[in-house]
Amino acid sequence: MKATILNIGDELLIGQVVNTNASRMAQMLTQAGIDVSGTYVIGDNAEDIIYYLRHCLQRSDAVLMTGGLGPTKDDITKKCLCQFFDSELYENEEALANVRRFFEARGYELTPINRQQAWVPRCCQVINNVLGTAPCMWFSCGMENGEWRMENHPGAAANSQLSTLNSQLSTLNSQLSTPNSQLSIPNSQLKKVVVSLPGVPFEMENLMATEVVPRLVRHFRTDQIVIKNILVQGIGESFLSDLIEPWETALPKNIRLAYLPQAGMVKLRLTAHGGHDDRPKLEQQIADAVAGLYPLAGKYIVGEDMESLPELVAYTFKKYHLTLATAESCTGGMLAHQLTAMAGASEYYRGGVVSYCNEVKECALGVRHETLETYDAVSEETVSEMVTGVRTRLGADYAVATTGVAGPTGGTPERPVGTVWIGVAGPEGQLVTKLLHFGDRRAQTIERTTHAVWSELIKLVKSNLQD
Amino acid sequence: MKATILNIGDELLIGQVVNTNASRMAQMLTQAGIDVSGTYVIGDNAEDIIYYLRHCLQRSDAVLMTGGLGPTKDDITKKCLCQFFDSELYENEEALANVRRFFEARGYELTPINRQQAWVPRCCQVINNVLGTAPCMWFSCGMENGEWRMENHPGAAANSQLSTLNSQLSTLNSQLSTPNSQLSIPNSQLKKVVVSLPGVPFEMENLMATEVVPRLVRHFRTDQIVIKNILVQGIGESFLSDLIEPWETALPKNIRLAYLPQAGMVKLRLTAHGGHDDRPKLEQQIADAVAGLYPLAGKYIVGEDMESLPELVAYTFKKYHLTLATAESCTGGMLAHQLTAMAGASEYYRGGVVSYCNEVKECALGVRHETLETYDAVSEETVSEMVTGVRTRLGADYAVATTGVAGPTGGTPERPVGTVWIGVAGPEGQLVTKLLHFGDRRAQTIERTTHAVWSELIKLVKSNLQD
Repeated sequence: MKATILNIGDELLIGQVVNTNASRMAQMLTQAGIDVSGTYVIGDNAEDIIYYLRHCLQRSDAVLMTGGLGPTKDDITKKCLCQFFDSELYENEEALANVRRFFEARGYELTPINRQQAWVPRCCQVINNVLGTAPCMWFSCGMENGEWRMENHPGAAANSQLSTLNSQLSTLNSQLSTPNSQLSIPNSQLKKVVVSLPGVPFEMENLMATEVVPRLVRHFRTDQIVIKNILVQGIGESFLSDLIEPWETALPKNIRLAYLPQAGMVKLRLTAHGGHDDRPKLEQQIADAVAGLYPLAGKYIVGEDMESLPELVAYTFKKYHLTLATAESCTGGMLAHQLTAMAGASEYYRGGVVSYCNEVKECALGVRHETLETYDAVSEETVSEMVTGVRTRLGADYAVATTGVAGPTGGTPERPVGTVWIGVAGPEGQLVTKLLHFGDRRAQTIERTTHAVWSELIKLVKSNLQD
Repeated sequence: MKATILNIGDELLIGQVVNTNASRMAQMLTQAGIDVSGTYVIGDNAEDIIYYLRHCLQRSDAVLMTGGLGPTKDDITKKCLCQFFDSELYENEEALANVRRFFEARGYELTPINRQQAWVPRCCQVINNVLGTAPCMWFSCGMENGEWRMENHPGAAANSQLSTLNSQLSTLNSQLSTPNSQLSIPNSQLKKVVVSLPGVPFEMENLMATEVVPRLVRHFRTDQIVIKNILVQGIGESFLSDLIEPWETALPKNIRLAYLPQAGMVKLRLTAHGGHDDRPKLEQQIADAVAGLYPLAGKYIVGEDMESLPELVAYTFKKYHLTLATAESCTGGMLAHQLTAMAGASEYYRGGVVSYCNEVKECALGVRHETLETYDAVSEETVSEMVTGVRTRLGADYAVATTGVAGPTGGTPERPVGTVWIGVAGPEGQLVTKLLHFGDRRAQTIERTTHAVWSELIKLVKSNLQD
């Protein structure tokens, strides 16, 4: 089963807004086992919308559209859908109730323009958007005389019967000791689907997660996949591969293993594939596989189901009831921001200092004036005093610090742009420092420094936990 | 003249990576007066690449592709281009010299695999990529017997003559007192163009800015546009519109004005349109228009050619040699990060404190224990002591502070999730505080709080400068 994504909006086309919807939708579909075969961005232009609706329906089973659902003149998606499916707009009661509720809760008056949000093509099924006023619309359609038609097209009844039959067959099949793969009707005989979603990212995301993806999975009886990520640290990819070779060889044939090296660690991704009704079986297979990995590589496993290093830091500090403080020069608040962007940061993060000028390094962190004078602000001595200073002053178990030349100016021959010192301090005077060299691109230097910091911090915490 | 963008890569298709290339490329094309008619993301799949190359060439004059240029097996863009244009790969000397230079500078050995980076289709023109090893490739082509063909297709010579002729005509035209619009040959008679760029964002961006966009503008003799943004603060959109009405009415017909309201301010965007050779004239028109705006609305104009509030803060503080400090609870380092993400922050930003727990508010900012006990950490009293504390301790002219409940937990009936206090302190004890209410989405609360903080800060600085 293939899906295409069609994002509509002039603001996307001219690059005013980065199209995060496309990647988020693609992630959610991929995780549900639905292949994305293409993503398209077009403007608020009727001719293009209709052209690409047809184009996408020809090349995929489901078309997921976003955008163009607002009440202003340039939002024309609903009109185009009417034209495409030969339907007409009407005021939908359920959608109107939602719009009314939305305006009442905010104490606003419902104007005729806002009321237009509740108008939808007669041929669609409305999916209620609890986070906004633009309804989500589900169209299930088939081809008739070279045109895509809705609901009552001749094939609809047959398709619906096929779907029911398929369900019954699959139940029967699951009762057989040797499942009979002949006992199912290919998905392609089921109706194709067009879904129109609002372009506001959080409304789209909520609708996709709670309604659209589950409905697609049911409608197309898609194959199931179960994915599990395991983060490993302190061992290189090739050594890890040798170590877990017997386990890998013994994995069931429907489970695939991928090594994904990241900054300072390796992510192992297990993907189990199975039929539409196999989810419980797949989940059990994955749980068994993960349990089997621990006896071999347990001491390198730092976390499960995490995507990023800051997530791993948060998980570790919360789990072991540890506290953390930050002192930042060249990362300028990015470390603090990465931690506090995640809910629950107050459980382990005490706070930090952004010591952008030398006086602040002295007054807020207690770096000695002589250290700065003798060794420079970007030096092992300075980063050591920064990290121990912030740990003590903010009363944390662990602390991290950065000082460097992010650029593009401020470099010297001895200390070129991209030179960074990082420091990690732990209980009982533990101190780790490291010198890094990056290039002259500011954003990249800041980002790579944060990777190095989190990686060194995890290493120290982990080695302390093992002692 | 229309362009399409074709981004190739499985990692984009499954949503592992957000496609920032599409928006950046679209921005650069739009700013150069080139219309983007569609953006497409497809996987590393030969059939799709060839299908969409044809599709895009039919629907636009220039196709800008990214991705699939690496040396590994899944990078197949170059092979597809060979197939499409009936060409073959060869080792290009200029590209090889660039790859060699790249590896030598890093002290790496040039392996046969890396050397493959210098192989390109014989029919393309190589554009040197100074920031990476994958060359940029320019194909100029025409239709022949229903197939797209390169260079030596029958129309090539004629097209080249047309292009030269057009250039001569335009010079002639610019010498006439009354330009003759008949004296030009429609762009559509010029050859179409395919450009293949590396997918690495900074390589792509550099190539687009220095080579690809200027070449497209020359090749297609595109119309020119000149854009100017003016930031206005302290007056609502409708009042501003009344105020500048006479000026707006008197604008030349080829200049369009757009009102773009943003958090706490209005951006006025002037866009001047003209022919390929009109750039100097358009620049003069825009300069005149801007000069004419100041007598009417000068006191509300806070900056020109800036896109965001942090940019405006940086500009203002540098221009007037002011210094700034930050104290953050709920924004958790985001304010500091927004400032330090821009080069030159050390000229005005002294530093900040991320006071995530109450003890840090006390020890690092001097908030009194009784204040926290009596009024709560999220209160006008606390934010006042935070902002005055950080200003004094870090020795800055101005300071800003935030404290709030970003959520999703931590709310109480009196102080629900989304409650935020912000504070701004200025010279001689100036203090502004403001209570804000946002919803329960953490990222949005953090972002909106930063808008409010920068907006209040600019207001205070501006009013002090006027005194």
